[in-house]
This record gives sequence, structure tokens and C-alpha cells, in this order.
Amino acid sequence: MSVTAPLGFRAAGVSAGLKPNGARDVAAVINDGPSRSAAAVFTRNRVKAAPVLWSEQVAEGGRVRAAILNSGGANACTGPPGFQDTHTTAERAGAALDDSPGEVLVCSTGLIGERLAMPELLAGVDSAVATAARDGGLDAADAIRTTDSVAKIAFRRGTADGFGYTVGGMAKGAGMLAPSLATMLSVVTTDADLTPEQCDRVLRAATHRTFERVDSDGCLSTNDTVALMASGASGVTPDEEELTALLTEVCADLTRQLVADAEGASKSVAIEVVGAANEDDAVTVARTVARNALFKCAIYGQDPNWGRVLAAVGTTDATFQPDELNVAINGVWVCRRGAVGDDRSKVDLGPREVTVTVDLSAGSAAATVWTTDLTVEYVHENSAYST
Amino acid sequence: MSVTAPLGFRAAGVSAGLKPNGARDVAAVINDGPSRSAAAVFTRNRVKAAPVLWSEQVAEGGRVRAAILNSGGANACTGPPGFQDTHTTAERAGAALDDSPGEVLVCSTGLIGERLAMPELLAGVDSAVATAARDGGLDAADAIRTTDSVAKIAFRRGTADGFGYTVGGMAKGAGMLAPSLATMLSVVTTDADLTPEQCDRVLRAATHRTFERVDSDGCLSTNDTVALMASGASGVTPDEEELTALLTEVCADLTRQLVADAEGASKSVAIEVVGAANEDDAVTVARTVARNALFKCAIYGQDPNWGRVLAAVGTTDATFQPDELNVAINGVWVCRRGAVGDDRSKVDLGPREVTVTVDLSAGSAAATVWTTDLTVEYVHENSAYST
Repeated sequence: MSVTAPLGFRAAGVSAGLKPNGARDVAAVINDGPSRSAAAVFTRNRVKAAPVLWSEQVAEGGRVRAAILNSGGANACTGPPGFQDTHTTAERAGAALDDSPGEVLVCSTGLIGERLAMPELLAGVDSAVATAARDGGLDAADAIRTTDSVAKIAFRRGTADGFGYTVGGMAKGAGMLAPSLATMLSVVTTDADLTPEQCDRVLRAATHRTFERVDSDGCLSTNDTVALMASGASGVTPDEEELTALLTEVCADLTRQLVADAEGASKSVAIEVVGAANEDDAVTVARTVARNALFKCAIYGQDPNWGRVLAAVGTTDATFQPDELNVAINGVWVCRRGAVGDDRSKVDLGPREVTVTVDLSAGSAAATVWTTDLTVEYVHENSAYST
Repeated sequence: MSVTAPLGFRAAGVSAGLKPNGARDVAAVINDGPSRSAAAVFTRNRVKAAPVLWSEQVAEGGRVRAAILNSGGANACTGPPGFQDTHTTAERAGAALDDSPGEVLVCSTGLIGERLAMPELLAGVDSAVATAARDGGLDAADAIRTTDSVAKIAFRRGTADGFGYTVGGMAKGAGMLAPSLATMLSVVTTDADLTPEQCDRVLRAATHRTFERVDSDGCLSTNDTVALMASGASGVTPDEEELTALLTEVCADLTRQLVADAEGASKSVAIEVVGAANEDDAVTVARTVARNALFKCAIYGQDPNWGRVLAAVGTTDATFQPDELNVAINGVWVCRRGAVGDDRSKVDLGPREVTVTVDLSAGSAAATVWTTDLTVEYVHENSAYST
């Protein structure tokens, strides 16, 4: 179902020849309305790929007719010619739809520093627009895969005053999971009737606690994009709080799929920080632990090495006293009051799912960041990718 | 020669039984004066090992009679009993020297979260103090090794008004190279006649551009300590600028030895940032690239992947324009103006020494950070260490 679960959307995924292996590599997600409100959030990297620079301008207008996405090339660090390529892509889609290119989002993912094969891409845009259909959601999700082993899709149904509306979405490899391939890309759709301002608010609220809290290797991609497109085709304007909750569920579902399919990872690790003075402190501490190479190696080695957790926490400026820190690994409090706690041999690090809980003993705020372990396979895949 | 190169110092390294393999594990460096001015810099980690908490107080007094160092245990995250162990160690050394325990620095390195074997350590302190001699510098450097494959020592001779003075030093595994073993420890000695304030100034100046610019995996140890002890035995008070230059040379020499012997590394990488608006920007950018997991994997794979360098630079708040960035790898400008530059196949990443130059095109400041690649061996060693 994916992005075509909500009414008003057509999608396609076609093979244009950008990927050497002939797999699908160009996707289109088309909003047939009646509304076309939209919003998007982008990478905070200051080195932004051409499609990000383009799509930021499109998103500012608050209206999106279609999103064109390609794998097989990130179009990042390609200078003015690369930006022209993105512009040309949007114009081609606009022409095929007999609509404004200024309302066409463009997303790209693949290697940095190489120009796209434009004749192939433009033919792919024509083909994707021509074949886009109500049942094309899965093909679109397939076409944006790079090293993703499976397509990632999700949807949820909501109700407002007895009338139904739907949120659907697709995503590919979290940028921070495989960032030089560049990118975490996601398109989320809904047939709720929303203003562009509502789209912006609910998308930021949903991504803030989902996509933005995945951190596999601390590396921020040049291409990350999450877009929300609203068709209004259900005729329903839901309560904003309910919609935010629903959208957050869809984004959280996609986030979990990204972590579960991360390149080279053998563990899905939730870093749960509790007892924080405020949520910012909790996120800072969780992210710092999630990025600590030694901690991540220890998890790979199934070693409940709480000393490495403490050493990571100690590098932050969060509010805490070192001798009041507690750490649990998979529920066993191996560190109490900054020193040895319960018997570490009780910790079972066999399963793929790992939870590390850090209690800062400084308040009542909490946050979770999702990460992976640092494995021999990660190093292999990322040392051999472009050569 | 090491710490005993300057006049007025005795040293020893003995086997006390803290290391299971019976290797040397307790070192003493004793200053016989006539002066005992000293200074020290410590880890910025807020989770500080007991010996750091103790030695910070000693260093504040500006006078150090002796430094006692042990491998085989970091005495970090050991709570009040661990602090008491450090206190007891200093008292035992004070008794053996018939001097004040408040002028005894203590440094420890090894696993976090375990108490030290105190009877063995105290017997080792007695033995090290009793056997300390003018020719004991190399034994002391040997005793502080953990996974270091070789002892690290350096010395330089200086002249002031025709009279000579000497700076000597020893170091072990940079904390950031093997931080859970915790620690980069270094003791540097001189027979120059200095005040405690001079010691503090020259030590901070020298470490600022040497030890503080090594960053192998971004992980900050709980035990890092660099101490300077001055005996005044040469009778010479050198020009402070000249002394700073000499001390910086000794620290830089030790720094290079640390990177060359880093755990699991196959490359010694200098990240050289030029064209920065100021030195802080240059250091920030260099450190951010040095910590980027994907970049480090690429160097391991001998892949001149400049896109990963740009993606890392883009995450900083340094002054630069993305389309004015230039990147050279081993002298080949593979990225010019934020896009493809010279042919990347010209880059030879075969040798161990690698230089990555980032030109921010924003000013005339520069800085270098030394790091290593991210290797399969690093993951192996750090996933299996404590189990």
C-alpha cells in the first residue's frame, strides 16, 4: 500500500538504467488532489545535494503535485551543472503532468560526486508518470532502495467524526545508516484535508521523535528528505493532535524498519535516557552514547561494558552527577551510583534487540535514540563501496 | 632516556602482579630537585577516574615530588573506595620517600569499573621507589604500556645563554586510541628551573597543539593525564618561548608515536585544514573529519572518497561556502569548488602515512588533527577486550 494507501495518490517505480543491475531506480508519487498541501524536512548538513537545494524551494511554496525520486546517484557535490540536472528533472515531470515544475519535489540517492545519467533519468520520469497508478506504491518503495534489503512501507487508518482518513508512507536506508550512498528518503501521504501550515506542523512533530532520533554512525547525509503530501481526497479534516499521533506512528514504524535493515548491523539498539533534567539533555546523552565507537563495538561483541557508557555520558554537558549515574543493559542494572552494580554476567546480549537505559538521576525527562552496533561487516561494506 | 634524560630525576618500572602476564606494571618518576615545580592537564571527561580526581588536587599545589603510575587497572568508576585506594597509594609513596603524599601524582590505566589489587600495588610502589635510578626511564615507560606494542619515549636538548637543559618524556596509548583500556598518560620532565606558573603555561601551550589534537575514535578517556615536572637541576632558566618550542617538539614526537602504534589502525592520517577563518574553525573541521566513521572506513579501504570528507565538513558551523571547498588526498586535489576535481585514480593510498587537506577558502588560519583509519581489527580488538 505504502504511499498509495490514502485516496488521491498514484505512484510508480520503473527501471531507467541508473542502477547497473537493471533494478527499479526511478519513482513517482503523484497527488491528484483535490488539495495538494505539503511540507518537507531536510538534512541539516550544510553541504546539501542539488535535489535538496531544489526541493527546499518547492516546499516553501507549501504545494506539491508530485515527488520524483531516483536511486543510482545522489547528485551531491556536483556543482551548478548538478543543480541544472535537478531543475531539468522537475521540468520534465511538470511537462508530463501538464503542471508546474515548481510543485515537483526531487529526491536522489546513491554515490556522492557523480553526475546523473540524464537521458536515462528523463526517460524514466516519463515512464514513471505515464504508468503511475493506484496500486503502484510498492513499486515506488522498491525503486528508491540502494543497499536496503527490503522495501520499507507503512500505513495507518484514522477516524474523525466517524469518517475515515489514511496515512501511508515509504522510506529507504536511513542516511545515517548508509549516508554515503546518501540518504534517508521518505515520502508520507495522507488523504486528510490540510493546510500547508498544518502539514508543516504535524510533519515536524512526527519526525522530531522518529526519523531525527535514528543515529547509526553519527554521519549526516547530504540528501536526507522527508516529505508529507496531503490530497484532501477523504474530505476529512482530522483533529491535529490525533493526526500527529497517527503520522508519528507511521514514521516510527518506518524508523524501526530502517534500523532493522541497517547496513552491516547485527543489533538494533535503543538508548533510553531517563531521569534527565529536560528532554534536550536526554537526547544529547542518548545520541552521544549511540555515537560512541567503543560502546558500539562492545555491543557487537555482546559485552555489557557499562564503563564505556559512562565514559560517553561524561563527555556531555547534560545535568548529572557522575556518582549518581545508573546504567541498565537489557534490564540488568550493571552500574549503580557510578560504580559496579548487579552482576554483568546476568545480561543476555544474544537477541538482536538491545536496550541500554541510562538514569541521570537529575529530573523526570526521557528520550530514546535508536542505533546499531559497530561491526566488522559495517567496516567491510563502507570501505569497499565506491571502489 | 625518557623521563630521566634531564638531571635531577630517577625512575623505575617494576612488575607488581597487576598484569596477569607478569609484565612491568608500576612506574615511579621521582624528582630530587632542587626545585619541584610542576603542572598537569587532565581529561575533560566529567566521569573522571579516582587518580584524576586526586592528581587534580596535587597539581593545584604546583609542586610534585613523584609520580606513581600503574597499568593493569584504570581505577575509574570505582566510587569512594576507589578514591581511597588512590589516596593510600600516594601515602605509601610519600612514606617511602619520607615526603608529603600531597605532592605525589597518581595515574592509572587499564579496565574501567574494577578495583585495583591493592596489596600488590602497594608492594610495587615500595619496590619502584626503592629501585628508582638515573637509568630507569625506559623501564618506567615500559611499565605504563597496556596494548601499546612499544614503549614511547622522547627527549630534546635546549640551550639558554650557552648553558644546556633537557626535556624528556614518556607516554602510553592515547586515550582516544584505546580509551577503555583507559588512557593516554604522559609524564614530561625537565631540569630547567621554572616556577609552577611557568610549568602550567608551557605545558598547556605544548599539549594544546599536540596531545589535544590526536583523535583516533572520538572517545574521551576517563583517565587522560599529562604532567610536567621540573627539577631545576641544570640551574638554567630558559627563555619561555624557546622552552615552549622544545616541549612542543617532545610532545609532538610522543604524539606521533601514539598514532603510529594505535590499536587496530592500518593508517596514520593527518587531517590538515587550511584557509580557515580562525584556528578554532580549523580544529573543529579537522576533528569532525577525523571522527567520521565513513571517511575512516574509506581510508582503510584505500578509497579516496572526498564526498565523505565534504559530508563531514558540512556538519560543522565553521565559516565556509559549500561551493568553495577544496579537498586534496595525499596531494591530489580530488575536489575543487565543492565538486569533482582532479582524477581520483591518481591518489596513492598504499603507504601508512596519509594526509587529507581541506581548504575552507575562508581565511588564512590552519590546524592539523592526527587520527587513524577505522579497521576490521579495531572492531575486533574493541569488541573482545573485556570478555
